[in-house]
Amino acid sequence: MNYDEKFATAIADLKQEGRYRVFADLKRHCGAFPRATWQSQAGPREIVVWCSNDYLGQGQNSEVLAAMHEALDTFGAGAGGTRNISGTTRAHVLLEDELASLHRKEAALLFSSGFVSNEAALSALSRVLKGVTVYSDELNHASMIEGIRHGGAPKRIFRHNDVKHLVDLLKDADPAAPKIIAFESVYSMDGDIAPIADFVEVAKKYNALTYLDEVHAVGLYGLQGAGVAEATGTMGEIDVIEGTLGKAFGAMGGYIAGSSVMVDCVRSYAPGFIFTTSLAPVIAAGACASIKYLRRHNELREKHQERAATLKRKLAAAGLPVLHSQSHIVPVMVGDPVRCKAISDELLAVDGIYVQPINFPTVPRGTERLRFTPSPFHDDDMMDRLVAALDRIWTAARLPRAA
Amino acid sequence: MNYDEKFATAIADLKQEGRYRVFADLKRHCGAFPRATWQSQAGPREIVVWCSNDYLGQGQNSEVLAAMHEALDTFGAGAGGTRNISGTTRAHVLLEDELASLHRKEAALLFSSGFVSNEAALSALSRVLKGVTVYSDELNHASMIEGIRHGGAPKRIFRHNDVKHLVDLLKDADPAAPKIIAFESVYSMDGDIAPIADFVEVAKKYNALTYLDEVHAVGLYGLQGAGVAEATGTMGEIDVIEGTLGKAFGAMGGYIAGSSVMVDCVRSYAPGFIFTTSLAPVIAAGACASIKYLRRHNELREKHQERAATLKRKLAAAGLPVLHSQSHIVPVMVGDPVRCKAISDELLAVDGIYVQPINFPTVPRGTERLRFTPSPFHDDDMMDRLVAALDRIWTAARLPRAA
Repeated sequence: MNYDEKFATAIADLKQEGRYRVFADLKRHCGAFPRATWQSQAGPREIVVWCSNDYLGQGQNSEVLAAMHEALDTFGAGAGGTRNISGTTRAHVLLEDELASLHRKEAALLFSSGFVSNEAALSALSRVLKGVTVYSDELNHASMIEGIRHGGAPKRIFRHNDVKHLVDLLKDADPAAPKIIAFESVYSMDGDIAPIADFVEVAKKYNALTYLDEVHAVGLYGLQGAGVAEATGTMGEIDVIEGTLGKAFGAMGGYIAGSSVMVDCVRSYAPGFIFTTSLAPVIAAGACASIKYLRRHNELREKHQERAATLKRKLAAAGLPVLHSQSHIVPVMVGDPVRCKAISDELLAVDGIYVQPINFPTVPRGTERLRFTPSPFHDDDMMDRLVAALDRIWTAARLPRAA
Repeated sequence: MNYDEKFATAIADLKQEGRYRVFADLKRHCGAFPRATWQSQAGPREIVVWCSNDYLGQGQNSEVLAAMHEALDTFGAGAGGTRNISGTTRAHVLLEDELASLHRKEAALLFSSGFVSNEAALSALSRVLKGVTVYSDELNHASMIEGIRHGGAPKRIFRHNDVKHLVDLLKDADPAAPKIIAFESVYSMDGDIAPIADFVEVAKKYNALTYLDEVHAVGLYGLQGAGVAEATGTMGEIDVIEGTLGKAFGAMGGYIAGSSVMVDCVRSYAPGFIFTTSLAPVIAAGACASIKYLRRHNELREKHQERAATLKRKLAAAGLPVLHSQSHIVPVMVGDPVRCKAISDELLAVDGIYVQPINFPTVPRGTERLRFTPSPFHDDDMMDRLVAALDRIWTAARLPRAA
């Protein structure tokens, strides 16, 4: 049997669909974000990154880097074990305390990534809460879908951000059975925001546990950067908050926050938490410094929102099909995977503008897009160059303009 | 509905069984490994760590730390995105090249952790190879079990390291159907080693793909530290090698290595790879430096083996029930979870010796143990103190001695 032939066929399928991914090999320049060097076939090339989830440039924050240098000298490189077997250091304990404090919850728990935190927490909660049904927003992230699937509990999908549909599903349910309502605050591809207060009200009425993914909101919303739940005054009503250290906080890793006993259960029952080496202390220390910094610097969040609003305004003024999102995410719709990739390639090669095409399975087929993430460090000049380049491409290819 | 009550019940179950885990809060001392400070209830206490998987002390290697300091200054803290969306840096590309070279394979692929690499790779391979059956050693790690389960393909379990049983299972199978044989080289709890050459022979005869987990062997076995497959001359015959950067290499993260097209398939089809922030460049740079170092320093592996053999000899001479493992792992059997935890507690509180009790579900019930991992930095004096402490505890509690 030739296994490589089978693998080659699976790859050919992706190429035929136009959704084979080619990773751009980048060298970030610490201190010069969002500028980077792209290692192209033709040699190195200076570019501007327009699709990073390091939304506030915290990856180059000097307080964060100082904490990481210090942690390297104190703790060394890796943690050397699972959390249970020699891999819990002061850096982990302090970071979990900081996260609990940020979200005003009793406890928090770290994971290798945001993906792992959703997978591990949702699957463990599904198993511990015998007889539970999980109510899941249809646009929930792949990591939540995997967590729910691996937990093996029955799942009901409600239409995206549709409170009425959720209520319809809950009305049919056994009132005595446990329920989890799982949703996100900021949906990262459309940039729209969940009606958290309405979901909380419904959860109370139907005795459901609320599980809120704030990965695209932590650091970015709320007076201290705890997320949309903080900004909307609903944080105290959410049972499980899940977040990441790899986006606005500029490091890597994921977490949950909630009641001590809920956190203890996930800690004790989730294989994806138990059987894995803990985060390197250097990462934990950097994340902790970043959270502390962002709690004190609301002006960075204000600047971030201003930059996103400005880019949306400039794109709209040029008649480009920008989605008028409620958040900091700026999608420009293309609607075809091959076209989307071609525009991305031209922007990079001709204009030194780096934005990845977003194709299926990250977004539904037919809604392929370019997704821009302006940071406080993307200035007016960069924006004007971006809009001019898109305008040129849209004109040359006679792509549809905004209505 | 009171969800916290349900969580409390689940926790009470663990406590009643004597397998509730309490994490020791440690401060590793870079440069003084295996010494650390334990943050006990009564205040800080100097201890010796005897259960780290930083097997060679690479977490404090000066070349590794220098590479990490430099990467922080060059790239900043986090990667800022998934591998596809701005999160591929030079550090990732160079590390994947180094891993492919180490294992003499066409390509390698990084993951957030060894757990994720097994979960993502085995589930993706199971889905891409339509009609596949997975043959899995009964003692395979939780991450392999999860990956196989999530892939949804039929699974046949063969008795641990039992080539004859595997053949019996394969004889019954459809010769035309794809098959994966998944096993580990060093089993981390007993320290025994798989008969890799025999498994390879069987795989060839029955046209199966071989998937070998070398997480407790990479850095430690073979002339360049590529693992047991390198040491036994079988590396070229293994289709998929899976390893970790979080144990002997002293950093964090996991990987697979194999043919380009196999790696491309996992890269393109595994949600646990696609939808997650890539490893922080600082971690990738540290891991890369560590691999390069260990490829050149076989004397560290020789010293490691000598230290493990010496500890086994000293324990046996004192009549303690040490398992005469084939590898660097030194298990001392206890056989009861409550007793195992009590011994561990006494060693820490009285002797400043830190070794976690290993209880179910990490090992089968009735085989609870203390698992010691001597490194090149554990000297004779530390070993003598350890043996004396165990001897005292065994005598006081009249625990069974070795036969």
